Amino acid sequence: MRILVVNVNTCESITQAITRQAQSVAALGTEIIGLTPHFGAESIEGNFESYLAAVAVMQRVMAYDQPFDAVIQAGYGEHGREGLQELLEVPVVDITDAAASTAMFLGHAYSVVTSLDRTVPLIEDRLRLSGLWQRCASVRASGLAVLELEQDPERALQAILQQAEIAVREDKAEVICLGCGGMAGLAEQIRQRSGVPVVDGVTAAVTLAESLVRLGLSTSKVRTYAAPRAKAIVGWPAR
Amino acid sequence: MRILVVNVNTCESITQAITRQAQSVAALGTEIIGLTPHFGAESIEGNFESYLAAVAVMQRVMAYDQPFDAVIQAGYGEHGREGLQELLEVPVVDITDAAASTAMFLGHAYSVVTSLDRTVPLIEDRLRLSGLWQRCASVRASGLAVLELEQDPERALQAILQQAEIAVREDKAEVICLGCGGMAGLAEQIRQRSGVPVVDGVTAAVTLAESLVRLGLSTSKVRTYAAPRAKAIVGWPAR
Amino acid sequence: MRILVVNVNTCESITQAITRQAQSVAALGTEIIGLTPHFGAESIEGNFESYLAAVAVMQRVMAYDQPFDAVIQAGYGEHGREGLQELLEVPVVDITDAAASTAMFLGHAYSVVTSLDRTVPLIEDRLRLSGLWQRCASVRASGLAVLELEQDPERALQAILQQAEIAVREDKAEVICLGCGGMAGLAEQIRQRSGVPVVDGVTAAVTLAESLVRLGLSTSKVRTYAAPRAKAIVGWPAR
Amino acid sequence: MRILVVNVNTCESITQAITRQAQSVAALGTEIIGLTPHFGAESIEGNFESYLAAVAVMQRVMAYDQPFDAVIQAGYGEHGREGLQELLEVPVVDITDAAASTAMFLGHAYSVVTSLDRTVPLIEDRLRLSGLWQRCASVRASGLAVLELEQDPERALQAILQQAEIAVREDKAEVICLGCGGMAGLAEQIRQRSGVPVVDGVTAAVTLAESLVRLGLSTSKVRTYAAPRAKAIVGWPAR
Amino acid sequence: MRILVVNVNTCESITQAITRQAQSVAALGTEIIGLTPHFGAESIEGNFESYLAAVAVMQRVMAYDQPFDAVIQAGYGEHGREGLQELLEVPVVDITDAAASTAMFLGHAYSVVTSLDRTVPLIEDRLRLSGLWQRCASVRASGLAVLELEQDPERALQAILQQAEIAVREDKAEVICLGCGGMAGLAEQIRQRSGVPVVDGVTAAVTLAESLVRLGLSTSKVRTYAAPRAKAIVGWPAR
Amino acid sequence: MRILVVNVNTCESITQAITRQAQSVAALGTEIIGLTPHFGAESIEGNFESYLAAVAVMQRVMAYDQPFDAVIQAGYGEHGREGLQELLEVPVVDITDAAASTAMFLGHAYSVVTSLDRTVPLIEDRLRLSGLWQRCASVRASGLAVLELEQDPERALQAILQQAEIAVREDKAEVICLGCGGMAGLAEQIRQRSGVPVVDGVTAAVTLAESLVRLGLSTSKVRTYAAPRAKAIVGWPAR
Repeated sequence: MRILVVNVNTCESITQAITRQAQSVAALGTEIIGLTPHFGAESIEGNFESYLAAVAVMQRVMAYDQPFDAVIQAGYGEHGREGLQELLEVPVVDITDAAASTAMFLGHAYSVVTSLDRTVPLIEDRLRLSGLWQRCASVRASGLAVLELEQDPERALQAILQQAEIAVREDKAEVICLGCGGMAGLAEQIRQRSGVPVVDGVTAAVTLAESLVRLGLSTSKVRTYAAPRAKAIVGWPAR
Repeated sequence: MRILVVNVNTCESITQAITRQAQSVAALGTEIIGLTPHFGAESIEGNFESYLAAVAVMQRVMAYDQPFDAVIQAGYGEHGREGLQELLEVPVVDITDAAASTAMFLGHAYSVVTSLDRTVPLIEDRLRLSGLWQRCASVRASGLAVLELEQDPERALQAILQQAEIAVREDKAEVICLGCGGMAGLAEQIRQRSGVPVVDGVTAAVTLAESLVRLGLSTSKVRTYAAPRAKAIVGWPAR
Repeated sequence: MRILVVNVNTCESITQAITRQAQSVAALGTEIIGLTPHFGAESIEGNFESYLAAVAVMQRVMAYDQPFDAVIQAGYGEHGREGLQELLEVPVVDITDAAASTAMFLGHAYSVVTSLDRTVPLIEDRLRLSGLWQRCASVRASGLAVLELEQDPERALQAILQQAEIAVREDKAEVICLGCGGMAGLAEQIRQRSGVPVVDGVTAAVTLAESLVRLGLSTSKVRTYAAPRAKAIVGWPAR
Repeated sequence: MRILVVNVNTCESITQAITRQAQSVAALGTEIIGLTPHFGAESIEGNFESYLAAVAVMQRVMAYDQPFDAVIQAGYGEHGREGLQELLEVPVVDITDAAASTAMFLGHAYSVVTSLDRTVPLIEDRLRLSGLWQRCASVRASGLAVLELEQDPERALQAILQQAEIAVREDKAEVICLGCGGMAGLAEQIRQRSGVPVVDGVTAAVTLAESLVRLGLSTSKVRTYAAPRAKAIVGWPAR
Repeated sequence: MRILVVNVNTCESITQAITRQAQSVAALGTEIIGLTPHFGAESIEGNFESYLAAVAVMQRVMAYDQPFDAVIQAGYGEHGREGLQELLEVPVVDITDAAASTAMFLGHAYSVVTSLDRTVPLIEDRLRLSGLWQRCASVRASGLAVLELEQDPERALQAILQQAEIAVREDKAEVICLGCGGMAGLAEQIRQRSGVPVVDGVTAAVTLAESLVRLGLSTSKVRTYAAPRAKAIVGWPAR
Repeated sequence: MRILVVNVNTCESITQAITRQAQSVAALGTEIIGLTPHFGAESIEGNFESYLAAVAVMQRVMAYDQPFDAVIQAGYGEHGREGLQELLEVPVVDITDAAASTAMFLGHAYSVVTSLDRTVPLIEDRLRLSGLWQRCASVRASGLAVLELEQDPERALQAILQQAEIAVREDKAEVICLGCGGMAGLAEQIRQRSGVPVVDGVTAAVTLAESLVRLGLSTSKVRTYAAPRAKAIVGWPAR
């Protein structure tokens, strides 16, 4: 089974971290292919960048010329998943949904800890649309930018842990989701220090994607995610 | 006052229709500039196309080199408004929100009549995020594609009217919103035949945008719609 | 175009302030007529007074013997708008709805700052019924009574600003609505000091009412707001 | 114990029917006093009439010059209860709330059958504000006006029964609330024919009011329903 | 009229306290029978214990061999009420619902003060399912276990009062519900000190159960609470 | 890895069917142990039976004397999962949640097709509490009892398919969940005939449970699902 894990940022080192993260839990026989978009922002921290990433991820996946069995969109709170679901026959898993959906099996309420405060409403809105919002206790910002999280793991750890502890104590979260691709690899340390289960979206998405493939399930094509209708499109290279 | 009215489709005749529609209600002294995206689908009827339009509209507005006072995104249920709000200092009005918001002043519940069934979930989701969903009685599809609506007004009229009447009778709608740019110019006929107020998103957006400008109000920049942070971006603006 | 702006309080000086406020943004050719109810409380700060005002406003408007094009009910969180909508053919705009609806075009969430804590639930309930509640971050009380706000603008400014800042910082509001007619004229100062857009309900209502008139739209008469049925009514002077 | 049962309509025969209805379940030692408002519409079927009734009921209760232990507002979906709660120290029970609250002890979902379609949104909105809406399967109109219901019990029975059966079969209601004072006395027949429990708001309100008095409970005065502040009021006869 | 009041805990002294509490408000002619489950935990403070209590209460009621007119399940936030409603023809009242439903007649919002923090989500979830959650301002834990509350009334009083005051001041509760059977007898003292109405679930349930019986109302049997179908059951002694 | 799959019914043939179903998707190295409760109803179709099953499942799992890595509760809409989560250190997956959660990755809305109409509210309520209700288009009853579904697969197929088609056409479901253990093995046929993805709760639960184990995640013990406190328990054999 081959799973594409697509970074939403154009920063290569995040792609590498995400890919390693995905590989660390992939089943025997699952091949993880990490992809970096051909265009867009080095890190996604807002709507403009996120919309650009939505298209860039679709473009990157369509440009991939080998067969594959599932796609993981590895951005937290980003746009675009629905477009991929229209374009593809194979299952598409967004890490925002994967983390929340997994967390809900582990506790009565979960919180997300993300990068900057400005990205909080994006994540909240995606969870609302995904129908995974009701049991979200809070989305909290660590205050660190995506690239800061990625480049300074020790500082990231402290900042995330601080918010995780507030989430557990004040917001009554029982599970923490790591809400940024740049946090790859910190889950175990945060679990040990916070005392609650910590869900990493990328690893959760890998096992979910594998599960869907094994169950023979893929996106419904009867309405919302039907393939795009044939029509004139200008300036879209991948079709 | 200069207001940009940006089509989401690359179909020029829709831009012309929307522009005329906007001009028909613009105040004395308001200049309406109709813009067509430089790339994207000729008509938007799904998520892939809508995400592409989101970026294309942002690109088109940023490429406009004259001063302007407000922007209207003239697509029903499309993505992208939040990105424009980050990129611009002037107010941004989406016709989906403009129509719903206006309809809520006119009746206890409103319905939207749109093009194809597959676009219904997009509109519902945008209204949910905009916080304008509670008083929406239904979103109904006329069954006609965007270009069919635009090219055959008589057939469009019949199909829209049929759904409007069901919306009033069964869904208890008291106001109808025309949920597609291709429906420009049909509001008055549908009002006369259905007996309820009919809101056209483009004209509603023009008066709302003018109002915001006159009131000296524009997008809040403290959090969600703060200007994008300075960072490396590949392949934007012109692709 | 003639727009009636009806105070809900019987305090004349508030009528004058509201009328000036309305005139300050009215379009060329719009005549603003300020009306004071013939009965009721000098200031409205609770349900008993608000219900009395509902009837008094209806009576006052029905007693007005000249033609008019729209009515603005200038009370924040008061009852009665639905009754006016039944009695009249022209559009009716409540400033509570006008402010919230306008704020939602400007930011992801808005807060209302009002007079006394006891009026907070009234405003919340009106916003709930209007379907404009979802994006309301909070309704906060300045702690000053309506007449105190009106009579001591400097103290009002400090008290409102304090709550506005808490709303932005803690409740994550991105826009502030001034939730009391007695706050007329403070918007600009609060915007400058708080750094977020500030919406005054009266001015927002004026441009909205003008917009509805220009668009040829008025209240739907098919169900909720149909004209009252002919029947025996005792003790209602205006019919 | 003395309980005031206040009709919202000025039609005396409804007051008499409601009073008899209330007496039929009152405990030994409970005195029921039926009151008719001094002004307002003979029957309430809309917002204008309902707001007028709100004030008329408050006026009528304040004009009652004997001691009493509780007040029942006997109108379905009408305004005004919150005002009475401010004005009085004794408990206030609205029959809309009493019926819904009682029905929720009897089945998983309930429906209301009322008079005319135009009153449906009023009832829905009152239930929404009362927090008793979630388990409401539907509010259905019999199509008969209040006075028709009161004057032609056999026709009323048929019309109500028809809607009750649709509510049970299609809306999955398990309990029916009779949503109009003019339906007094029909509950038992509708229960027998529909096979589900039928709640009459007036009788439910009597036992609830008696319960509150026996438990020594009355309206909280700390915030929403605090007594009106002392202030100048013009044209309100009862204070 | 005979009403069974069933403790959910196997602790006899709580049964005695609850029975006395119920008797203190029972009408003349109402006989209160307190029952203790034959199996289960001495105190219920979690889901495992609550599910066990659900079955134990059903077993205890079915083992009662005299006629009775209503059943009160005297556990706050416990499971099982729906099962009793299937098994019995007479009305069933859960004290969680009785308290909330009563509180909603007294104030705009209510809070519950319960025993341990771990029981808060159980109560919240039961109120959500009962449709009585919307006006709940908060569920707060006193931090004392059920048996501690029962055995040390003075300490209980202090701990409950502290949370009640926070609920009123910060959560804007206007009424307090005592959320634990072990709190029997403290309502009056807490009311005096907190200044808001305090609802005891057991006494509220008694008057509600009496009311339902007097009104001739019982559980609807058409769908959710229809009698269990005849079928083979292993190891259930009471049928 | 060893996963316990616990039937909620005491009918052995359903245990066998469920076990086979689970084994059909289990990963290499996963051992599936099917368990039948020691007491309870042969089939669960209501609250009384479901509460009994909740305790019986907990008892059965605690009586299992070998190590295991996860537990699947294989009843649709049944009570009890929260109790297991308190009692165990390993992850617990309920098939109701597993199916809904999986379906939400496949389409914009899903419907559940279950056995009898009386079980519909149980399933709806469980989905509400699980926070997986928002995207549920409908829960529909096939009209066949659990044992009928299990014993007559051809009739089951027809009845389920009929409801699945209505769900897709009228309720706008894009995915169907098979809402009864007795439907094991029908998913593929229903998918082929209905044209939408069909999720079987048991197989979905197996891959989810395996995923949680592989990710090293288990139930949070900080609040709702903390281990029961040490206390006297009468008549509970397993502790």
